[in-house]
Amino acid sequence: MAALLRARAIYDFNSENPGEVSVRENEIVSLYSEQDIEGWLEGTNSKGERGLFPASYVEILRGDNNNTLGDAQSESRYANVPSAAGVDNAFPPPAQQPTYQQPSQGSDDDWDDDWDDNSTVAEEPGTTGNRYRDFDGNGASTYSVSTCSTARGQHPKSSATVSRNLNRFSTFVKSGGEAFVLGEAAGFVKDGDKICVVMGQHGPEWQENPYPFTCTIDDPTKQTKFKGMKSYMSYKLTPTHTQEQVNRRYKHFDWLYARLVEKFPVISVPHIPEKQATGRFEEDFISKRRKGLIWWMNHMTSHPVLARCDVFQHFLTCSTDEKAWKMGKRKAEKDEMVGANFFLTISTPAAPLDFQEVESKIDGFKAFTKRLDDSTLQLNATAGEFARKQMSGFRKEYHKMGVSFKVLSQAFEMDQQVYSAGLNQAISFTGDAFESIGDYFADQPNKDLDPIMDLLALYQGHLANYPDIIHVQKGALTKVKESQRHVEEGKMEAAQAEGITERCNIISCATLAEIQHFHQIRVRDFRAQMQHFLTQQMAFFHKITATLEEALRKYDAA
Amino acid sequence: MAALLRARAIYDFNSENPGEVSVRENEIVSLYSEQDIEGWLEGTNSKGERGLFPASYVEILRGDNNNTLGDAQSESRYANVPSAAGVDNAFPPPAQQPTYQQPSQGSDDDWDDDWDDNSTVAEEPGTTGNRYRDFDGNGASTYSVSTCSTARGQHPKSSATVSRNLNRFSTFVKSGGEAFVLGEAAGFVKDGDKICVVMGQHGPEWQENPYPFTCTIDDPTKQTKFKGMKSYMSYKLTPTHTQEQVNRRYKHFDWLYARLVEKFPVISVPHIPEKQATGRFEEDFISKRRKGLIWWMNHMTSHPVLARCDVFQHFLTCSTDEKAWKMGKRKAEKDEMVGANFFLTISTPAAPLDFQEVESKIDGFKAFTKRLDDSTLQLNATAGEFARKQMSGFRKEYHKMGVSFKVLSQAFEMDQQVYSAGLNQAISFTGDAFESIGDYFADQPNKDLDPIMDLLALYQGHLANYPDIIHVQKGALTKVKESQRHVEEGKMEAAQAEGITERCNIISCATLAEIQHFHQIRVRDFRAQMQHFLTQQMAFFHKITATLEEALRKYDAA
Repeated sequence: MAALLRARAIYDFNSENPGEVSVRENEIVSLYSEQDIEGWLEGTNSKGERGLFPASYVEILRGDNNNTLGDAQSESRYANVPSAAGVDNAFPPPAQQPTYQQPSQGSDDDWDDDWDDNSTVAEEPGTTGNRYRDFDGNGASTYSVSTCSTARGQHPKSSATVSRNLNRFSTFVKSGGEAFVLGEAAGFVKDGDKICVVMGQHGPEWQENPYPFTCTIDDPTKQTKFKGMKSYMSYKLTPTHTQEQVNRRYKHFDWLYARLVEKFPVISVPHIPEKQATGRFEEDFISKRRKGLIWWMNHMTSHPVLARCDVFQHFLTCSTDEKAWKMGKRKAEKDEMVGANFFLTISTPAAPLDFQEVESKIDGFKAFTKRLDDSTLQLNATAGEFARKQMSGFRKEYHKMGVSFKVLSQAFEMDQQVYSAGLNQAISFTGDAFESIGDYFADQPNKDLDPIMDLLALYQGHLANYPDIIHVQKGALTKVKESQRHVEEGKMEAAQAEGITERCNIISCATLAEIQHFHQIRVRDFRAQMQHFLTQQMAFFHKITATLEEALRKYDAA
Repeated sequence: MAALLRARAIYDFNSENPGEVSVRENEIVSLYSEQDIEGWLEGTNSKGERGLFPASYVEILRGDNNNTLGDAQSESRYANVPSAAGVDNAFPPPAQQPTYQQPSQGSDDDWDDDWDDNSTVAEEPGTTGNRYRDFDGNGASTYSVSTCSTARGQHPKSSATVSRNLNRFSTFVKSGGEAFVLGEAAGFVKDGDKICVVMGQHGPEWQENPYPFTCTIDDPTKQTKFKGMKSYMSYKLTPTHTQEQVNRRYKHFDWLYARLVEKFPVISVPHIPEKQATGRFEEDFISKRRKGLIWWMNHMTSHPVLARCDVFQHFLTCSTDEKAWKMGKRKAEKDEMVGANFFLTISTPAAPLDFQEVESKIDGFKAFTKRLDDSTLQLNATAGEFARKQMSGFRKEYHKMGVSFKVLSQAFEMDQQVYSAGLNQAISFTGDAFESIGDYFADQPNKDLDPIMDLLALYQGHLANYPDIIHVQKGALTKVKESQRHVEEGKMEAAQAEGITERCNIISCATLAEIQHFHQIRVRDFRAQMQHFLTQQMAFFHKITATLEEALRKYDAA
């Protein structure tokens, strides 16, 4: 049977751990079974090396190869990411965020000059911003509280009571979700770190921030260092709770984002605006980035958990003292309560959730996010095209009308009739009015469509986060079902299964609280933005009407 | 010399009179002189036949043939019309009106059933609507008061004291202008026929109509005759001075137009709306034609001379009595005071005009009409394109925004959150609002751009009339100069020359009065139409703003 089953690699896969084999794109491999073990297949590559490779990296060859290939390509948005075992395939965890780039050192000009040149904290290149580094086995030295070995190197036919997910790409594994559910997370939770999920009207929700605040971001100024050799943009941040201004650069936001992503496995950290290598000091780009950062900040300060966390507060409040900044930075980078341990800090409502109800809610939310993703993409494309049309076609049509009116008034001026002079001027003025209206159309998208598109970009970032978040919750639920089965089969102690259920409850509470927060903030944001949009549109058409009225008045005297 | 000079025919010319020779396009002819005699050249065609052909039908061949050909083609708008001798070539008289079709029997469906089947007046086919028929030698029997023979058949080397224009295409000849100037017009002018040119603030002008009136045109109704075998549209006309409704068909307008064009050589008769063979009963066409007829009527009743003339009054006031209608119709067709004799009815201000001043005014007006023609063409094209864009592109963009908003609201409806319901509805309503705005854009051109284009069409008709009118005045002025030279050379009696000068003064007064009327009505029309356009545009943008406001209000409760 083994010799008969073949598959073709559809992506390169480089073996990085014992037991794995590398395959090249289009390489034909023999399989021992077409049944994957938690996302991995065992087989022999063309060099005769035997081992494991991700199931989603290959397509099994049958009679109808073309069709199989077609299927493999149909989900191209996430196609180069192996799917997670035991979890619905509709939301495979993306290796990279599809909307915004992953923050990383060296890829953006902002990082040209390291703002922490004298840092004594050793950082490996590529460490910062890698959301799951602790669970990849890289940089594990900074994750000292982990009490268990990671999954790497273990054979799929493990004899562990509850099997481990061998797929190193699984968000459930990387986020620390699996480690926590299996009771492997441990750490000392200070009272200040405690995060409460309370039972609200619509289900679990994050306890509100008792000290809400906001933070303004002023126009950035261009700064130089090294005697003008290096220059960068510095943003002035003023949080309402301190009223003290701090200066931050884009790379500071980038660093903070990386910390937050690492720390909170089931919280949707808003993406920071896209990086741009060229034109960093151009007005348009600066304005666009600032607007993006304002949106980001708004979402950060609105979030009951993110707004209060230490690393964000350090970012917002640590002023010009270089030493204090570095201390806080190092503390954040050494934070033990990240990933799996984050779940230790969560306190849940007394009554445990009904997992069936949770599952149904999560499934509903998944369908909702899929639909919302599609509709925001559509609205974004339409708004972008509408903006482009207003700036080109609409403007041109009104301009052409304006020019034609002016040409008519110039012809009229040749008539040498005194009584026509007033009319000639009025028509000329009408020409100017239409040219102005053309300009209004060109200027308008910046005032109403751009903010809509900024909002959509932010939410597309959130929507890209949710597959991972849902994945973690679903992974936990799978472990619960597995443990219950094991108990029934007498392979596991009931107490151990209960622990898994309790920890799954914590993850579920956090996930539902985050979803609830998403809904609330979504309604708030879209209501405000639609109101802003309509108000701006009305002001726009009012302005046009006023311009026309001014032109009309010229005919009274004509 | 004769053998050396050659020319190439650029159009076919068919000899119709003794002394002329036919030439085919591209035929090479030998010339006896390159100096034309009042627009005619003498030469030998390729068959060896010797005779006259129109100078403008050939191009003289020199070294740079291509350039000559280029020049001949550059005025292609009127290119197939021979130019008149002694008159500036910039406005050669068009053989056909370039903008509207010439009215003629049989070419329009409206004429399918002759409304005058039982008429006892013999009409030759093609007679009606041929502006210059009396002077072409066709239908001359209806022109009984002419006291002289027409120009045809006479040799260019005529021994007449003041030479005749041999060019049969010349408007100056065809309109009766030449005959009048040369003192050949004669007729009995009744007091009621007297037309006064008075000296106004800005020069000669038509005496105002002491009994001004207007005339409404109601929506036409479909009528049938011959037991439903034939159907036609009947317009209800109600002139304010009689308050009595009369029913008229398009062909009645057409007939009237032909009478007016024939009667008034230097009055710009507004063109009637274009004919259309198909879709005569379609709503759009009916509405468009009615609007065109309203514009036409407005110009007719505004004109001091046209408004009062018998044939127009007959058209407006003769009601259902078939017999009275036919009597008036026959009377109009037998009217003697048309063409050359029309000038007999004009009484001028006591002081004769300074011809140099007249010439300068006419030249200024000619330059003005040329410029106005260009600018109305441009505005018309721009407005047409703008209308098209609003009905297609603009509408589509707003519709697409509307659909995208609705798709977003549908995604939001999947969230199952009670507190989002109001927002979802508001966004859906916003989608509807944008779809409505798209429809407003599509509907708007009918309200503001179409009337502008209707006005421009009417004025393009006038502008097409003026070359002929100017041509007649210029022809008269040329005769004056010629006669003065002849007097100096002792070839003409001073009294005869004085008569020519007096009659040229009459033509000049009428021409300047008509130009003055054109200016006054132009200022009135364009002011009114621009005011209407701007008012409509304001109402349009007001409506959009109100729709947006309604959408915005939905968010208050959301």
